[in-house]
Amino acid sequence: MGLPAGCGLELHSKWARGPRNLITDVPGVAVGHATIRQGDINTGVTAILPHGGDLFHEKVTAACSVINGFGKSVGLVQVEELGVIESPIMMTNTLSVGAVLDATVRYMLEKNADIGVTTGTVNCVVTECNDGRLNDIRGLHVTEQHVRQALADCGPDFQEGAVGSGAGMVCMGLKGGIGSASRVVPLDGTDYTVGAIVMSNFGRAGDLVIGGRRYDVRQAETSKDMGSVIIVLATDIPLNERQLKRVAKRSAIALGRVGSFCGNGSGDIAIAFTTANNRPHTSAQPILTQRFLLDDDIDCVFEAAVEAVEEAIVSSLYHAETTIGVRGNTCLGFRDCQWG
Amino acid sequence: MGLPAGCGLELHSKWARGPRNLITDVPGVAVGHATIRQGDINTGVTAILPHGGDLFHEKVTAACSVINGFGKSVGLVQVEELGVIESPIMMTNTLSVGAVLDATVRYMLEKNADIGVTTGTVNCVVTECNDGRLNDIRGLHVTEQHVRQALADCGPDFQEGAVGSGAGMVCMGLKGGIGSASRVVPLDGTDYTVGAIVMSNFGRAGDLVIGGRRYDVRQAETSKDMGSVIIVLATDIPLNERQLKRVAKRSAIALGRVGSFCGNGSGDIAIAFTTANNRPHTSAQPILTQRFLLDDDIDCVFEAAVEAVEEAIVSSLYHAETTIGVRGNTCLGFRDCQWG
Amino acid sequence: MGLPAGCGLELHSKWARGPRNLITDVPGVAVGHATIRQGDINTGVTAILPHGGDLFHEKVTAACSVINGFGKSVGLVQVEELGVIESPIMMTNTLSVGAVLDATVRYMLEKNADIGVTTGTVNCVVTECNDGRLNDIRGLHVTEQHVRQALADCGPDFQEGAVGSGAGMVCMGLKGGIGSASRVVPLDGTDYTVGAIVMSNFGRAGDLVIGGRRYDVRQAETSKDMGSVIIVLATDIPLNERQLKRVAKRSAIALGRVGSFCGNGSGDIAIAFTTANNRPHTSAQPILTQRFLLDDDIDCVFEAAVEAVEEAIVSSLYHAETTIGVRGNTCLGFRDCQWG
Amino acid sequence: MGLPAGCGLELHSKWARGPRNLITDVPGVAVGHATIRQGDINTGVTAILPHGGDLFHEKVTAACSVINGFGKSVGLVQVEELGVIESPIMMTNTLSVGAVLDATVRYMLEKNADIGVTTGTVNCVVTECNDGRLNDIRGLHVTEQHVRQALADCGPDFQEGAVGSGAGMVCMGLKGGIGSASRVVPLDGTDYTVGAIVMSNFGRAGDLVIGGRRYDVRQAETSKDMGSVIIVLATDIPLNERQLKRVAKRSAIALGRVGSFCGNGSGDIAIAFTTANNRPHTSAQPILTQRFLLDDDIDCVFEAAVEAVEEAIVSSLYHAETTIGVRGNTCLGFRDCQWG
Repeated sequence: MGLPAGCGLELHSKWARGPRNLITDVPGVAVGHATIRQGDINTGVTAILPHGGDLFHEKVTAACSVINGFGKSVGLVQVEELGVIESPIMMTNTLSVGAVLDATVRYMLEKNADIGVTTGTVNCVVTECNDGRLNDIRGLHVTEQHVRQALADCGPDFQEGAVGSGAGMVCMGLKGGIGSASRVVPLDGTDYTVGAIVMSNFGRAGDLVIGGRRYDVRQAETSKDMGSVIIVLATDIPLNERQLKRVAKRSAIALGRVGSFCGNGSGDIAIAFTTANNRPHTSAQPILTQRFLLDDDIDCVFEAAVEAVEEAIVSSLYHAETTIGVRGNTCLGFRDCQWG
Repeated sequence: MGLPAGCGLELHSKWARGPRNLITDVPGVAVGHATIRQGDINTGVTAILPHGGDLFHEKVTAACSVINGFGKSVGLVQVEELGVIESPIMMTNTLSVGAVLDATVRYMLEKNADIGVTTGTVNCVVTECNDGRLNDIRGLHVTEQHVRQALADCGPDFQEGAVGSGAGMVCMGLKGGIGSASRVVPLDGTDYTVGAIVMSNFGRAGDLVIGGRRYDVRQAETSKDMGSVIIVLATDIPLNERQLKRVAKRSAIALGRVGSFCGNGSGDIAIAFTTANNRPHTSAQPILTQRFLLDDDIDCVFEAAVEAVEEAIVSSLYHAETTIGVRGNTCLGFRDCQWG
Repeated sequence: MGLPAGCGLELHSKWARGPRNLITDVPGVAVGHATIRQGDINTGVTAILPHGGDLFHEKVTAACSVINGFGKSVGLVQVEELGVIESPIMMTNTLSVGAVLDATVRYMLEKNADIGVTTGTVNCVVTECNDGRLNDIRGLHVTEQHVRQALADCGPDFQEGAVGSGAGMVCMGLKGGIGSASRVVPLDGTDYTVGAIVMSNFGRAGDLVIGGRRYDVRQAETSKDMGSVIIVLATDIPLNERQLKRVAKRSAIALGRVGSFCGNGSGDIAIAFTTANNRPHTSAQPILTQRFLLDDDIDCVFEAAVEAVEEAIVSSLYHAETTIGVRGNTCLGFRDCQWG
Repeated sequence: MGLPAGCGLELHSKWARGPRNLITDVPGVAVGHATIRQGDINTGVTAILPHGGDLFHEKVTAACSVINGFGKSVGLVQVEELGVIESPIMMTNTLSVGAVLDATVRYMLEKNADIGVTTGTVNCVVTECNDGRLNDIRGLHVTEQHVRQALADCGPDFQEGAVGSGAGMVCMGLKGGIGSASRVVPLDGTDYTVGAIVMSNFGRAGDLVIGGRRYDVRQAETSKDMGSVIIVLATDIPLNERQLKRVAKRSAIALGRVGSFCGNGSGDIAIAFTTANNRPHTSAQPILTQRFLLDDDIDCVFEAAVEAVEEAIVSSLYHAETTIGVRGNTCLGFRDCQWG
């Protein structure tokens, strides 16, 4: 649902919100969670399906931007080289990337009998943040079953806050997690959508800024800006991979707006894809066509992306509930804090 | 002088300002201007000397970050490859880069009889923004004499606002130009300095945010975020070139804080150097030593850099005076606007 | 004319040569020289026109690859960001880049009254190698007139060897300079062309390999692999900017084939453009179309590019004549050496 | 043992080979294999230990170069950002990266009780090539046990050819796999070593060139240059991370020398580390020191790296034995071919 109207958190917004105010306002995009919460365990998996079809044979045009590379995300090298994503985009905790990668590969093999036999392999994108402050991360509690569950759960509606891979995340000293938002961009007579989903786990207590106002939490002090943030941007605007990289890079601007300075320990990774230029795995016809926006007209996309990412971060904080985690660590939800 | 105390513009600042609140608080750094203002002409040259000695034979360790590459700066490729700057860093208008490059090369040849004879050539760094809204930029009014003048003018004190290469710049629909600021960072018992200087020419009217407050100028409407911003960061903290690149990248955060979304047409380039690891042009001893900060302790540098760049941008606006330029275009100074 | 048949230098070649065996086999591409040779002066300017029309308003899709960034080429940052070239591609000596940039800007201003008034500025691409071993490079002998002369000289036929900007270049201890070659690539029933032009100034005496045979010149010993090589690749195959970057990167393979190890002091820069996806400066219609080759079918382009660059380098050596330069330095032409 | 003297394969070599002619000539570096060969299964794991101590708390300075990014290697983003490797470097088949990553994380957790509790997480480097032509890659036969086995097997002596992760690799239409070589570089009175290990799986049948001679195998035709090559370079020369990236980039030159054109489908990744600048995980003293070579003296390192990588590739072919794999696919060993 994104940030609810009337929640009292005002963000400057030039572009209108989409109907759900979620990344799934981009037609075809679906999101699902598997939340693992039991005793010391607060972790999970979140899956993003760029479209509902056969992703391996109908890839989405994509790019990524490494804002700060203290991170262990998987699959970015090939996205950069080929300009496509051909798998679900998975989110989980840092030490479970191997398990989630393995499970996502198995899922793709199951769906595609040609992989590794009549064609090459598959590049799965798995992203992560370190939820070790609230989760028994060394326990490696994420299994293939959770990956399947998150993938099966994918749909246009999904929860935000301390759910899925966001269950144990901490952002700006507050409980972080999953947040989403969208913007509608009219172009050439058509209403297009730019949507964002974030897994927020970055920033230092006391640094949070929302709509220009500083929210100075000291209750859940963290000494450093460790953590990370994963940002996925989706759109149906025709862009090529160079332009999507430009869009992804604008995520750094949104981080600046909410008060981050991109700390050393934060793996800040942005991925952007469009559903408007799907690319076949093979083609009898070697020369294909892609549509793209004149760069001179791209500012609306940049601005909508910045607004959507900023709001998705705030929404992740707004929805996340106070969580007690491993070693008794407690992290307050934004709405459980008293603000002056 | 940076942003004067008591000016009414409040920026969140964790780190103390240096004595001048200028980039020249970093010992050895000097800045000078040549301003060209006559009729339709509002342009100039600004020079930054990383240190007062022989730059070619005693290079400063450096790196750069291309935040948005719609720009024509010169010399960045070699800075990236070798991790050093070996010339003054020049700022001017976009179409005068050739003239300034040529003049800077001549200056370096004059100072170094070995260049091009017993040793290789010299890599001069020349940066630019498009001042065509206020300057007769097609007139190509910058000459070698202005370059010499800016270099001769270099010292620890310098003016901000509509001076030097900033004479014709426009930022956020207001008169922009040169701004500077500094922060003191205590590390291991020593007070180090992080300083920034900017040539501000970016942003869209109405988008300016200072300390969380939006300043909505519509008086000098511009249709697009065209322009650019050049950011130079200096420090005496021991960092290596990888770390300086990380520092330079944080400039994007500062752009986010003042309300930019990094528009398509803005060539946003950041350069960072340290005076703590000077590298000789040649050495009888092939293996050298450089000092660097443990990355785990670098957050103070990142944060100080973001604060200095943010404040330098605001200072450029604060000091710039209303300017009437080519084709009668008028651009209001920040202090000549009435803010609600 | 490229490397003449029957010259005795055998290169493995999978793809057929074009009719001229020059980069100008790509329809529309033109090349011209201004050679400056007098006493201690051996330098010049070479110009490459990507097409014969209005380059600023009809840009070519392009990318570049910095193989080794010890170089001072100008304009690459914007090519990378926007994926287009909007000016002639100029080649000259390292210290004359400023003069050539200034002159090329003047040429573009003359042709386009809108630049700097009703539209933004122009990004000119100027590349360079250091010809200081044979040329009085400190004399800065290149002037605007030479730039105009090279541009006026542009046509489908052009000389190779010690001409234009290649007049004073040294490659592998031999006289280097300008070389070119082309390959025909049939795709989907059409014969496309991949062409290359190089300014060769790299490598160490004794390292040259042609078609697997080592040519061990010690007559013109140089102590280091200093110098540089500029490589420009042109094609009419529909590629997007990501793919053109992939093509440009393959130039490193060609350097390996001729015996280089990419020495520290060599600024090895490759630029690739296609004439198949021209992009308008402005457009009433914001969404445009570009054609591109399925990456799965791109190997023929990679291989043709490697072959063309390798042969262009060899051709530059083959055509260059023994030259006596500044300080009496003599550099033998390949055909003036006695090979065992 | 590298390429044995007297094997009849002559490579141009300026620098002397080390005593083992293996990457393990760099003191402290160890390599181990787990080979899985049974019926349709030809795969495995190879582990490289940068040093024999506590890698997490004593990281090696490192960098990487993505020559062609059609690959799924894990961990490169953080190596790029921080300039260190803090885990063993693992090699395996493409679809087993998840399993190997998971197992390597478990190994690191076991060795380091602080990870995920009192300190952050760990970045494990896992590299891959697609061995699907000879291996039942869809069977996902690599397990944690194989990872443990390869790590336990690590030592200064190791086999080359169709062993470890090289068991099912195909290179230039011939049986590929693991190869290694080293070069001794005297610098400033000390004999340093540059060593390389490769997992060779790239190139097209008929393209192989050794020492300038073309080896035209058509027996094991492959239609495309699919596959990949992983290159790991080690040295004890003091270099910083920028310089190690320069060294890693030179691997492309070696690919050119053996006849590759870096095909589309080949994930060509090079990693370089030095044991001369180990970096502590934490330090009471925030400012550290690293030694580095003057770039002006680095050519010997570049050249030694190119020679070592070229020879390691040839050695991988020389040692690999004819292998019959999945679906009856047979791949001839180099020494089982008849060369004219």
